Amino acid sequence: MNDITSTEWLAEPLAALDLNSEKAARYRQTQLTKPPGSLGRLEEIAIRLAALQGTANPTIERVQIAIFAGDHGVAVEGVSAFPQSVTSEMIKNFANGGAAINVLANAINAPLDLINMGTAYDTGPLDDVTNYNLGPGTANFTLEPAMTESQLIQSLAAGHNAIECARFADAQLFIGGEMGIANSTSASALACLLLDTSPLQLTGPGTGLGSDGIAHKIKVIQRTVELHREAANSPMEVLRRVGGFEIAALVGTYIRCAQVGLPTVVDGFIASVAALIAEQLHPGVKAWLFFSHRSTEPGHQAVLNALKSEPLLDLGLHLGEGSGAATVVPIMQLACSLHNEMATFTEASVSNHV
Amino acid sequence: MNDITSTEWLAEPLAALDLNSEKAARYRQTQLTKPPGSLGRLEEIAIRLAALQGTANPTIERVQIAIFAGDHGVAVEGVSAFPQSVTSEMIKNFANGGAAINVLANAINAPLDLINMGTAYDTGPLDDVTNYNLGPGTANFTLEPAMTESQLIQSLAAGHNAIECARFADAQLFIGGEMGIANSTSASALACLLLDTSPLQLTGPGTGLGSDGIAHKIKVIQRTVELHREAANSPMEVLRRVGGFEIAALVGTYIRCAQVGLPTVVDGFIASVAALIAEQLHPGVKAWLFFSHRSTEPGHQAVLNALKSEPLLDLGLHLGEGSGAATVVPIMQLACSLHNEMATFTEASVSNHV
Repeated sequence: MNDITSTEWLAEPLAALDLNSEKAARYRQTQLTKPPGSLGRLEEIAIRLAALQGTANPTIERVQIAIFAGDHGVAVEGVSAFPQSVTSEMIKNFANGGAAINVLANAINAPLDLINMGTAYDTGPLDDVTNYNLGPGTANFTLEPAMTESQLIQSLAAGHNAIECARFADAQLFIGGEMGIANSTSASALACLLLDTSPLQLTGPGTGLGSDGIAHKIKVIQRTVELHREAANSPMEVLRRVGGFEIAALVGTYIRCAQVGLPTVVDGFIASVAALIAEQLHPGVKAWLFFSHRSTEPGHQAVLNALKSEPLLDLGLHLGEGSGAATVVPIMQLACSLHNEMATFTEASVSNHV
Repeated sequence: MNDITSTEWLAEPLAALDLNSEKAARYRQTQLTKPPGSLGRLEEIAIRLAALQGTANPTIERVQIAIFAGDHGVAVEGVSAFPQSVTSEMIKNFANGGAAINVLANAINAPLDLINMGTAYDTGPLDDVTNYNLGPGTANFTLEPAMTESQLIQSLAAGHNAIECARFADAQLFIGGEMGIANSTSASALACLLLDTSPLQLTGPGTGLGSDGIAHKIKVIQRTVELHREAANSPMEVLRRVGGFEIAALVGTYIRCAQVGLPTVVDGFIASVAALIAEQLHPGVKAWLFFSHRSTEPGHQAVLNALKSEPLLDLGLHLGEGSGAATVVPIMQLACSLHNEMATFTEASVSNHV
C-alpha cells in the first residue's frame, strides 16, 4: 500500500512502455490499405496507445473523468470576470448534470467523478460529490503561500485516489478536469516561476477579462512572482506557494497515471501547467500524457513548448473542466478503430507499390 | 424535376439560410453555463448548423457518405506512387468493408454509397456499387481534355444523384469522398489554373512520391497548364480539361447540397478543389460547407485561402476517401450536444457576472 500521507509515493517508479507492442502496431500501420503515413496523427495515437496499453490492438472503451474544484484566495484581488461564488455554483451544476463536461461525459459514455477540494461558499449537501474540505480555498498568494504542506500533500493524494478509483472501474483512459474561479491566475503564476518567464507573456483573459482586467491581473501576478521567487526553489515549492488544490490534484493524477500505466488526456492551459509540474517532479510522466487541444490562453503555448508537445486539436477552446480532453476522445477512438479494423494490403489484395 | 442531362440545374437557386434560427442559437450560446466564447469553434459549428438546418437546436443524427472513384489518364505519366490498378482494387476494398472510410462510416453509423465512375481495370461484379461506366478513366490531360462535354455533365449529375439519395435517406449531413490514382495531379492542375499559381507551389507527394517523383509531377502539371491555359477560360472548362470524373461528381454534390439545403463536410485537398470550383460556379455554395481538416498536401492551404476557410482539424491527414470529413463528425455532434443539453445560467442558478 502506498503511503499517501506524505509525498513519498510521488517517487515510485513509472510503468514501463511496451516497445514490442509499439513496434507491432507501427508495422501494422504500414500494412493497412492506405498510403503510408496518410492517417497522420491518427496513426501516432494508435501506436502510442499500443505502447501504453501493452497490446498491438489498443482500444478505448472505458474512459473515466474526474473534475477537481477548489477556490483561490487570490480571487479577492479581482482577477476574474466571474465572482468567487461561481466555483460552488458550478459544483452544483456539475452535480445536476448541466455543465459542459456533463454533456461531454454523457456523449462519450464516461463516468464523471466530482471532487470538491475546498470552496469559499457552501454548496449544501450534494449527492455524488467527494468533499476534501481542505479549507475555504487557498490563501491569497499575493501575501503568503497558497497552501500549507498538509494541504499540498492532501491535494496530491486526492489525485492519487482518483486514479485508484479509475483503476477500480477498469478505465483505459483517464481525464482530469479543473474548475476554480481565479485558477488561471494561479496557473500563470506557476508557469512564470517554472519557466522563468514574464507575466506579460503568460497571462491572459481567463474566463473573459478585458484589456484593463488583464493588465491588472498581470500586476497581481508580478507581485506574486516577486514575493515567492526566491523561496520557490523546487517544482513542489512553486506548486505549494502559488498553486491551487485542484491543480495539485491534477499533478497527482498525472504522476499516478504514469506509475500505474494508465494513459491520460491533458486538457488546456491549467491542466498543462499541472502536467509540466508532474513531468518536472518525475521525468518520464509525459510518455503517458496525450495533449488534447491548444487553448486560446496565451500562456498555453509556452507550456506546451516546454513539454515539447503538440496538442491534437486547435478549436479555440478555453473552458476547462476537462472539456477539451473529453472532446478529443472520439478522435482517439476512431484512431483505434482504423488501426484495428482496416484491411491489410494482403487481406484486400490491393497493390502496395508501383 | 431537374434536367440533369445538361448543366442547367447547376444554376438553380441555393437554399436560404435561416437567420432567425442562427440568431436564436447565438443567443443561447451566451446563456449556457460557461464563459462566453469558451467553446470556441464548437459554438461556431452549432450556430452555423442552426442557420443551415433552420432550427435553434441543430442535431446530426443521420450522416450519409458517398465515395466517388474514377481513373485518370494522366496516370500513364508516372505521377503516382501506386499503380493504376489500385483504383479498382480499392473499390473492391470499399465493397468488402476494409478501407479507412468503411471503418469510419461504421464508427459514426453512416451509410456508405459506393460509386464507380469509370476505371481502367474491371472490378468484376460487386454488390452495392453504382457504376456509371463513363470510360476507362479520363483522357491523359497532358495531351487532350480529360473529359468530353458528355462525361463532364454525367459526372456532375452523379453528384446530383448522390444528394437525392441522401435526401431520400433523410440525411442531416452529407460527406463526399474521392478515390482515384493520380487524382492529386488533377487537383493540383485544377488549382493552378483556378488560382493562376505555379505548379511549384501547389504540387505535393500525393500518395507518397519522393522528391524526384514530385519534381517529375511538377513538370507534368506544368505541361498540362501550358496546354490548357488559354482555352480553360471558365471554371467549368477548367474542370472539363484537367479534372476527373470523381472530382466533377464532388462539384455536383456541393452545388446540389447548397440547392437543397443539406450541410456537407469537405474532406482534404482534392475535395477542397472541387469545393472551390463549386463556389466559383455558384457563389454562395460555401455557406453550406464545413471544411474538415488541413491536409499535408501543400496545395491545400492555397485553396483554403481562396475559399477564406479555416478547417476544423489539423491532424496530418492525406488519405482522401472522405476520411478527414468523417473524422470531424463526432466533433460536430459534440458541438450540437453541448449547445442543446448544457444548462443556462438561469436554469443552474450560476452567476454570470461579477
